[in-house]
Amino acid sequence: MSVKPSIAPGTPANMGVDYVISYDYAAAKDKAEATGQFTKLINAVHNVGMRTEVRDGSQGKVLVFVSIRSEQKLVGAVYRSRVKDWLHGVRPAAPDKETQRSLDAEPLTEAERLRIVHAMLTQPTSDGGAGITPGKGEWTLVESIFPLHDSEFNKEWMKEWSTKWHVTPEDLRKLRDMYGEKVGFYFAFLQSYFSFLIVAAAVGAGAFFLLPQYSTFFAVANCLWSVIFVEYWKRQEVDLAVTWNVRNVSLLQHKRARFQPEGETQDPVTGEVVKVFPAWKRLLRQALQIPFALGASVILSAIYAVVFSIEIMITEVYNGPFKSILVFLPSVLLSVFVPMIIGVLTNVASRLTDFENYENESSYEAAMTQKVFVFNFICSYVPIFLTAFIYIPFGNVIVPRLDILGLMTEATEDDKASIFQVNPDRLRKQVFYFTVTAQAVNLAMETIVPVFKRKALKKATEIRNKRSNKAPASPIDHEDEKDFLTRVRNEAELSTYDVTDDLREMCMQFGYLSLFATVWPLAPVSFLINNWIELRSDAAKICIEMKRPVPYRADSIGPWLNNLGFLAWMGSITSAALVYMFSTPVAGQELPTALTVSGLLAAIFVSEHIYFIAGWAVRLALSKLDSPGLVKERQERYIVRKRFLEESVGVDRETEGKEGVLEQLGRSAYKFWDRQHGVEEAVEAGKLIILEEKKTQ
Amino acid sequence: MSVKPSIAPGTPANMGVDYVISYDYAAAKDKAEATGQFTKLINAVHNVGMRTEVRDGSQGKVLVFVSIRSEQKLVGAVYRSRVKDWLHGVRPAAPDKETQRSLDAEPLTEAERLRIVHAMLTQPTSDGGAGITPGKGEWTLVESIFPLHDSEFNKEWMKEWSTKWHVTPEDLRKLRDMYGEKVGFYFAFLQSYFSFLIVAAAVGAGAFFLLPQYSTFFAVANCLWSVIFVEYWKRQEVDLAVTWNVRNVSLLQHKRARFQPEGETQDPVTGEVVKVFPAWKRLLRQALQIPFALGASVILSAIYAVVFSIEIMITEVYNGPFKSILVFLPSVLLSVFVPMIIGVLTNVASRLTDFENYENESSYEAAMTQKVFVFNFICSYVPIFLTAFIYIPFGNVIVPRLDILGLMTEATEDDKASIFQVNPDRLRKQVFYFTVTAQAVNLAMETIVPVFKRKALKKATEIRNKRSNKAPASPIDHEDEKDFLTRVRNEAELSTYDVTDDLREMCMQFGYLSLFATVWPLAPVSFLINNWIELRSDAAKICIEMKRPVPYRADSIGPWLNNLGFLAWMGSITSAALVYMFSTPVAGQELPTALTVSGLLAAIFVSEHIYFIAGWAVRLALSKLDSPGLVKERQERYIVRKRFLEESVGVDRETEGKEGVLEQLGRSAYKFWDRQHGVEEAVEAGKLIILEEKKTQ
Repeated sequence: MSVKPSIAPGTPANMGVDYVISYDYAAAKDKAEATGQFTKLINAVHNVGMRTEVRDGSQGKVLVFVSIRSEQKLVGAVYRSRVKDWLHGVRPAAPDKETQRSLDAEPLTEAERLRIVHAMLTQPTSDGGAGITPGKGEWTLVESIFPLHDSEFNKEWMKEWSTKWHVTPEDLRKLRDMYGEKVGFYFAFLQSYFSFLIVAAAVGAGAFFLLPQYSTFFAVANCLWSVIFVEYWKRQEVDLAVTWNVRNVSLLQHKRARFQPEGETQDPVTGEVVKVFPAWKRLLRQALQIPFALGASVILSAIYAVVFSIEIMITEVYNGPFKSILVFLPSVLLSVFVPMIIGVLTNVASRLTDFENYENESSYEAAMTQKVFVFNFICSYVPIFLTAFIYIPFGNVIVPRLDILGLMTEATEDDKASIFQVNPDRLRKQVFYFTVTAQAVNLAMETIVPVFKRKALKKATEIRNKRSNKAPASPIDHEDEKDFLTRVRNEAELSTYDVTDDLREMCMQFGYLSLFATVWPLAPVSFLINNWIELRSDAAKICIEMKRPVPYRADSIGPWLNNLGFLAWMGSITSAALVYMFSTPVAGQELPTALTVSGLLAAIFVSEHIYFIAGWAVRLALSKLDSPGLVKERQERYIVRKRFLEESVGVDRETEGKEGVLEQLGRSAYKFWDRQHGVEEAVEAGKLIILEEKKTQ
Repeated sequence: MSVKPSIAPGTPANMGVDYVISYDYAAAKDKAEATGQFTKLINAVHNVGMRTEVRDGSQGKVLVFVSIRSEQKLVGAVYRSRVKDWLHGVRPAAPDKETQRSLDAEPLTEAERLRIVHAMLTQPTSDGGAGITPGKGEWTLVESIFPLHDSEFNKEWMKEWSTKWHVTPEDLRKLRDMYGEKVGFYFAFLQSYFSFLIVAAAVGAGAFFLLPQYSTFFAVANCLWSVIFVEYWKRQEVDLAVTWNVRNVSLLQHKRARFQPEGETQDPVTGEVVKVFPAWKRLLRQALQIPFALGASVILSAIYAVVFSIEIMITEVYNGPFKSILVFLPSVLLSVFVPMIIGVLTNVASRLTDFENYENESSYEAAMTQKVFVFNFICSYVPIFLTAFIYIPFGNVIVPRLDILGLMTEATEDDKASIFQVNPDRLRKQVFYFTVTAQAVNLAMETIVPVFKRKALKKATEIRNKRSNKAPASPIDHEDEKDFLTRVRNEAELSTYDVTDDLREMCMQFGYLSLFATVWPLAPVSFLINNWIELRSDAAKICIEMKRPVPYRADSIGPWLNNLGFLAWMGSITSAALVYMFSTPVAGQELPTALTVSGLLAAIFVSEHIYFIAGWAVRLALSKLDSPGLVKERQERYIVRKRFLEESVGVDRETEGKEGVLEQLGRSAYKFWDRQHGVEEAVEAGKLIILEEKKTQ
C-alpha cells in the first residue's frame, strides 16, 4: 500500500499511464467521422502537453494511452492548483514560494496527480485544458476517460481491510491519497456510522431483551442517538476536510458544460463580462419542484396503497381458490410497476433539473439528488407508514369498505368486522423485512450477483464466438504488452463507479433506524453486521467491478447531509407517534378517541422539542471540544499571521520624530499643551491639586 | 458633520485631547496613596508615548488630559491594527504595504483613532499598553477614562436626524465613524426595525379595522413578519459588518482582567505557555445557570401570580370598604417587591457569571446578558401569560378557591360562581397597557425626567452652597481655558452609556409584537410612533446626558440576536394558542374540553411548523440575493487572488525540458511509450485500427 513519493511518474505496472481514453469508432456514422474526430482528439491531447500511445481496444474501440510529457509541466500545474486552493481558503497555509520545495514539503499523491491531469484533459480550452467531454458536444465518440487500477495497492487494500476489525484514520488517508476525497468521504462516513452503530446495537439489544415493546426509554435513546450521530458527523466532516486540505473545495465550482446562458452581464466582482442566467427565472423554474415532488409522492403512495389493499384482501380476507398463487400478486405488481414509474419519474426529474439550468456541476448534482431522495423516501418508508398509521388504527373501518369484489358479501355488517381482524404483528414483520431481508438481498445483489453475471457473460461470448465459427477477433499485440493490454481492455468494459448510490443506500438505512427502530430494536444489530461487510464489499466493488474512479475532491457527503438531518427530525415525530399508539397493551383494536388524538399530538410535540433541544445541546457541546483538524488549521493560520506581523513591525520607528502637529490646532491648544513639560512637571501639578494648595497651575 | 481626514490631531475645539482621565484622589485612604498612585499613572501614560496636561477637576478630582505625543506612533499603531485585522479575516483586503499610502487610501476616522489610543491606555503592559483599568486592580483611584464630546458634530447630528424622516446608510456611516461600530449597530438595528414596523403597522391597522378579533390571517402575517425581520436583520448585520470592515471582529477577543487561571498549558497552536481554566470545570459551573434560571423564574412568576390574585380579588370580587384605595395595592406591591427581587437576582447573576470565570470580555457579557434576559422575559410577559392562559380559561374554577379571606363566605357554592365572572376584556387592556402606556412612560423617563433631574440637582447644589455660606470652591483656571475646563468638568460628571440597555428595550418591545400582537393589532402602530422618537431621543441621550462612549467595535448586536430568534419562535406558539382559544365567539366562559386541548396542540403544531418552514424559506431566498457588502468583500478577495496568481504563473516555463523520467519505469514501459512519435504517427496508428487493417502497430 505504497503511495509514490514526490513527482515520480505513474505506477510502473501501468507503464506510467495516467489516463486511458476509450474511443468508440464503431459508433460513428462513417469512417470519415471516425478518423476525423480521432485526429482532433490526438491533436487536442498533444496540445496540452501529453504524450500518447494508440492501441487496438478490440470490439470497435481504440484505446489512447495518455501520459504527461514533461513532469515539470505537471509540477507547475500542481503548484498553481495549490496556490489557487490557498487563495480560496481551501488550504490554511500558503505553499512555499519555491515550487520544488513546496512539492518536497507535501509530496504529490496519486489522487492529486490524477485529478490535475484529468483537469488538463477535460477543462474548457478557455481555461487551458483540452476540453474533452466524453460523449458530449463535439466528443460524441469518446466513450470514457479513466485511470488504470493499481492492482498492487488494491490487493493490499483488500487484504488489510478484510483482516482488521477497525478502519483507522490512517487507512482512510491512504485510501484518499489513492482514490481522492470524494470516495474517501464515503468510506469515512461509513466507518463513523459503523462505530456509532455499535452503541445503537448494544442499546437496541438491551431494549429488545429487557424493556417492554415500544419502550419510551428506547425511543428517546434512539432519537438522541440519531441527533448525536448527525451532529457528530457534521463536525467530523469539517475536521476531515481540514486535515485533507479540502475545506470549502465545493466553492471552487466547475462550470457545467451544458449550462445555457441567457444574456451577458458584467461581473460586479471581477469586472469581466460573464454569461448568466437570471436568478428569478431559475427560481420560477425551481418552483416546479414542488408540484413535481407532490405529484410523484401521490402517484407512488397511491400505488403502494392500492397494492397494500390488495395484499390485505388476499392474505387476510380472501379464502377462495388459488390463494396460494394470488398471495404473490402484490409483490409482482410492485416489482413491475414501481421500477417502471420510478424510471419515468427519474427521467422527468432529470429533465426538470436540466431545465433549471444550473451553472455548476455541484448545484446540478445537489438538485438532482434532492429529487431522487423524494422517490427513495416514498419507496422505502411509505409501506411501513401505511401499516403503522392507516392499517392498524383504521383497518377495522377501512378494510370492509375495500371489499369491492364482494368477498365478504355473504356476511352481515357485523360479521364483516369479525371476519377481518387487524393483524398487529404485521408492522413488526414489515420492519424486519426492510431491515434484515431486504438489506441481505441488496448486499447479495451488489457482491455475489455481479461475479456470476460476469462469468456467465464471458461464457456466453465464448459460446457465441464458437458457434459463429469465427476466430476470436483478438487484436495482435506486442508480446511484452499482451498481459497489460488484456487487463486494460477488461477495465475499459467495467462500469463507472458513482459514490452517490452507495451514500444513498446508507442514508436510507439510517432512516429505517431513526424512523422505525422503536418497532424492532434489533434493527441496529442487523445493520451493524450488514455494514461490516458493506464496508469491505464496497472496497472490493471499486477494485474489481468498477473502472478506477477519477479522484474528484469533496469537502462533505454533500446533499445527503441535509437528508440525514431531515430523517433524524422525522424520526423524532414517528417514534413518538409509534410509542404513543402502540405502547398501551392491546392497541389497534380501537378507533382513536378524541383523547388519543390530543395525546398523540402532545407526544409528538414533546418529542420534537426534545429533538430540537438535544440538537442544540449536542452542537454546543461539540463546539467546545477541540479537534485535531481544527487545531492544525489554527496552527497554520497562526504561523502565517506571525510571519506577516513580524514583517510589519517597526514601521513607526523608522519615521518617528515628526512633531509639531500641535500648531495645526491653533494658538489656544498650543498653549494648553504647553503648561507642563515631562513627567515631573505633570506629577508636580497633580500633587498641588491633591494636597489642595490652590493656585494657577 | 465632518470627520477629520487622514491623521490630523484630535478636534481643535477639544484642544486636541484624545482622552481625559478622571482621578478621584478624594477616595484615597491618605494623601500618600493619592500622590503615589497619581505618580504611577502619569509615568504609565508617558511610557506609552502620550503627552499629558494636569488640571483641577474640582470636587476631589484631578483631570489628566491625554494626547498621543507623536502622530507617527499613532500611524504605526493604526497600521499594525489594520494588518492584524486582515490576518484575522476582519478585513478582506490587505492594507497597502507602505504605511502612509494605506492611511491615504483609507483615512483614519475619529472612532478608529480613539479606539486605538484607548487600547494603548488600557491594554495589559505585556501587550504594549499602559494597562490602566479604571477602578480595578492597582488603579482604584482612576475613576474613568473618557473621550470628549465633539459638540459641533453632535449639534449637526441632532439637527439632521430631528428634521429628516429616514435615517440613511450614509447617516449611519457618519455615526459609526464618530462613535464606533457598537453604537452604530444599535442605531442600524433600530432603523431596520423601524422600517419593518411600517409594514407591521399597516397590516395591523388593516387587521384592526377590517378583520375580526383574533384573526388567523393576522396571526400568520404577524408570525411571518417576525421571521422575515429576524432573518433579514441577520443578513443585514453581516452586510454592515463587511461594509464597516469589522466582520468577525468578535473573534479578536479582549482578555478579561478579572479572569482567574487555574493552571498553565502549552497552547497547541502557538506553542506558548498560556494560563487556562479547565473547560469541564466551567461547564459544570455553567450548569448552575439552569437551577438559577428556574429558581428566578419561579420566584418572579410566583410574585406576579400572587399579586395578580390579589388584584382579581380586589377589583372583581371584593366590594367592602376602602375599595377605592385598595385597588392601588397590587401596583404598590409590584413596584416595591419586583425591583427589590430583581436587584437581588441581578446581584446573584453577576456573581454567578464571575464564578463562571470567562477568559474574554465578550463571553462574559454574553453570559450576563442571557441571565438578565430571563428576568426581563418574566417581568415583561408573565403578567399577560397569566391573564391569557390561566385567568381567562380557568378563572371560574380558580378564583373562588382563592377566597381565603372569606369574601364570598356568605354565598353558597353556586352563588360564588355567579358573584365572580371572568372579565374577557382584561387581556386586551393589559396588552394595551404594556404596548402603549408603559412605552410612553418609559420614553418620558428616559428623555424628560433626566433633564429635570439635572436642573433640580444643580439648584440643590447652589442652595446648599449658599446655605453653608461657602464661596463656590471652583478652581482657578487660566482665562483661555475656562470655558473648555467647565465643559470637561460637566462631562466628567455624566453617566457612562451602555448600548446593551437600549438594545434590551427594543428586543423586549419586539417580543410584545411577536407574542401578543394578535390580541391588539394596533400595537405595531404604537411602536412605530414610539420608535421614531426613540431613534432621535437615544441620539440626544448620547450627546447630552452621557459621557462620550469609547468607540468599541462589534460585528453584531451580539446575544440579543439569539433572543430575537427565540421570541419569534415563541410568538409562533403563543399566537396560535391565542387565536385558537379566543377566536371562537364567547371564549373564556367554558372550561377547555378534551377536544379543545387536542385542537390547541394541533394549532400550535401547525403554527410552529409554519414558522420553521418560513424561516428556512426566507433564509434560502435571502441567500440568493446579492448585497453590496458581500459583493465588496468578494471583489477585494478577488483582487488579492489575482495578484498572487499572477506572481505564481510561469513557474513551469522556466524549468521545462527535464525529460527522461521514463527510464525510471523500466525497459518495458520505455518500449511501450516508444512505439509512436508525435501526432502524425499516433493518428496513423489509430486510423489503421479504425479502418480495420489489422497488423502489429
